[in-house]
Amino acid sequence: MRPLILNEDELRARVPLDLAAIDVVENAFRQLAIGEVVMPPVLSMHLPAVNGEMDVKTAYVPGLPGFAVKISPGFFDNPARGLPSTSGLMVVLDSQTGRVRAVLLDNGYLTDIRTAAAGGVAARHLARADASRAAIFGAGLQARMQLAALRLVRPIRQAVIWARDPAKAQALAGRLTGPDCTVTATADAAEAAAGADIIVTTTPATQPILRADWLRPGQHVTAMGSDQPGKAELEPACLARGLYVADRLAQTRLMGELRAAPRLHDKDHPELGQIIAGQRPGRTSPEQITICDLTGTGVQDTAIATHALAASSKDDPHA
Amino acid sequence: MRPLILNEDELRARVPLDLAAIDVVENAFRQLAIGEVVMPPVLSMHLPAVNGEMDVKTAYVPGLPGFAVKISPGFFDNPARGLPSTSGLMVVLDSQTGRVRAVLLDNGYLTDIRTAAAGGVAARHLARADASRAAIFGAGLQARMQLAALRLVRPIRQAVIWARDPAKAQALAGRLTGPDCTVTATADAAEAAAGADIIVTTTPATQPILRADWLRPGQHVTAMGSDQPGKAELEPACLARGLYVADRLAQTRLMGELRAAPRLHDKDHPELGQIIAGQRPGRTSPEQITICDLTGTGVQDTAIATHALAASSKDDPHA
Repeated sequence: MRPLILNEDELRARVPLDLAAIDVVENAFRQLAIGEVVMPPVLSMHLPAVNGEMDVKTAYVPGLPGFAVKISPGFFDNPARGLPSTSGLMVVLDSQTGRVRAVLLDNGYLTDIRTAAAGGVAARHLARADASRAAIFGAGLQARMQLAALRLVRPIRQAVIWARDPAKAQALAGRLTGPDCTVTATADAAEAAAGADIIVTTTPATQPILRADWLRPGQHVTAMGSDQPGKAELEPACLARGLYVADRLAQTRLMGELRAAPRLHDKDHPELGQIIAGQRPGRTSPEQITICDLTGTGVQDTAIATHALAASSKDDPHA
Repeated sequence: MRPLILNEDELRARVPLDLAAIDVVENAFRQLAIGEVVMPPVLSMHLPAVNGEMDVKTAYVPGLPGFAVKISPGFFDNPARGLPSTSGLMVVLDSQTGRVRAVLLDNGYLTDIRTAAAGGVAARHLARADASRAAIFGAGLQARMQLAALRLVRPIRQAVIWARDPAKAQALAGRLTGPDCTVTATADAAEAAAGADIIVTTTPATQPILRADWLRPGQHVTAMGSDQPGKAELEPACLARGLYVADRLAQTRLMGELRAAPRLHDKDHPELGQIIAGQRPGRTSPEQITICDLTGTGVQDTAIATHALAASSKDDPHA
């Protein structure tokens, strides 16, 4: 059987950021907690001679018809050539036979979707149900997508964007504001944080951009920018202000916010999947502060890739 | 730019086992010795629930236009379904930008070619120039291909096949014999070994099939069957009989013949690439015994994948 080959345009058309995407990523985290998921450590290759790197992630999730192997290159001289730094693809293998079922030439699009969807899952399980005000730190693609994911799971009516470059924050706010949700920009990060029910940090910061004394009772924070040992977005004291939840503890200790928080580093914090599965408590009061640290996991890749195939086979009478 | 997608039939037509394939694999081993090759450890995933496994190998070889990421699944209940156990593909990324240049849907064919080509490289650099008699242990695909590779680099006129199943050895000999090279089968492994200038072991044996006291002065042995910690083809004493050469020492210590040879395990044996590059001596006399231990390396994958693309672009006026 010939594998299905889908390009980025086809995948963009078939896999929007919607509740279905959030649901499949939520299920993947649940399986990580309860199921016999096999998720080996990331294969990382550093290529200093060409200012590049490549990661390979994979996870086998029982119950899904396939599993993904994701190849994610980052080549940081690309912008000077007019190319994006990141690209890559996902290969989907059959769960029972290992045969190649599909090659998803997404150039990283499905990673954007599954990353934003995880933010939606975190808010759905940790933010207050009445959360209506969001603060987004950063003004890139994930700033936009994380806000969109929040709006799918919580009644967000106001959002404020803070970014290191105020002009970029202003431009993004102008693009996103609308009748159902007012989006503004601010140059004052403390003010942005203070007025929010949900704060999402989406930056490649290597020094904290969110301070612990800015946090207010009842807030939920999702920190999704740090995915490498050199990055960090939260002042480590933030983590002691409330319930800290990891997407995968083994990863957040190495490359998430937990890396720089020595006193909390080795504690048995809950994982998002354990809260979804009801194995560990999530938010226990409206005043509690909750913090979710997202570094990105192979189960999300397998979830979104098999979702893309299911969406494709519905549309394709030949599949 | 849309990646080039090639299927197995197209790759079989474009990438035969020939001197060009041997040359590109030889160059990859040379680069491994002299160049700034980046070759991370293999990503291995074990899936006992479905009697399966998957490996991902990669290597960046300076000077080549691309680098391969190879996904190799092995699902051992497949034969009962009428499918081969192994399959997979190679993805070729651009060396300068990381963009996906090609997806080679080879189902493992290119691995067969690069594995056989390494046997040719080993014989070219370690066997006596006048070697005319080969003994092949095993009667599978690599038995046939290793003999073909030997014939490309040495004046082989006679070959003898030994296999655990004498009927299979007989059948393979019948298929391969011809006017330029007489191929026979034997049920006596010691006899097969004794009469050969070059011995190639190609089996998945977990207990030695070649004894040290069968070896004769001047012989060259290539052991290419062991590629996992549970396998071994040579009695460990074989390794002490002559010059031991690894494809990659870090790998042969873990999964090659060196694993089961404690007294030689930690010595600084030469690698094949060092001999090709002239950094370490190879065969130093016609009477010396030489042994090459091949476990399979990512540089071979990158070499054969970029070779497949070069072969394709020559044939394809649109490339």
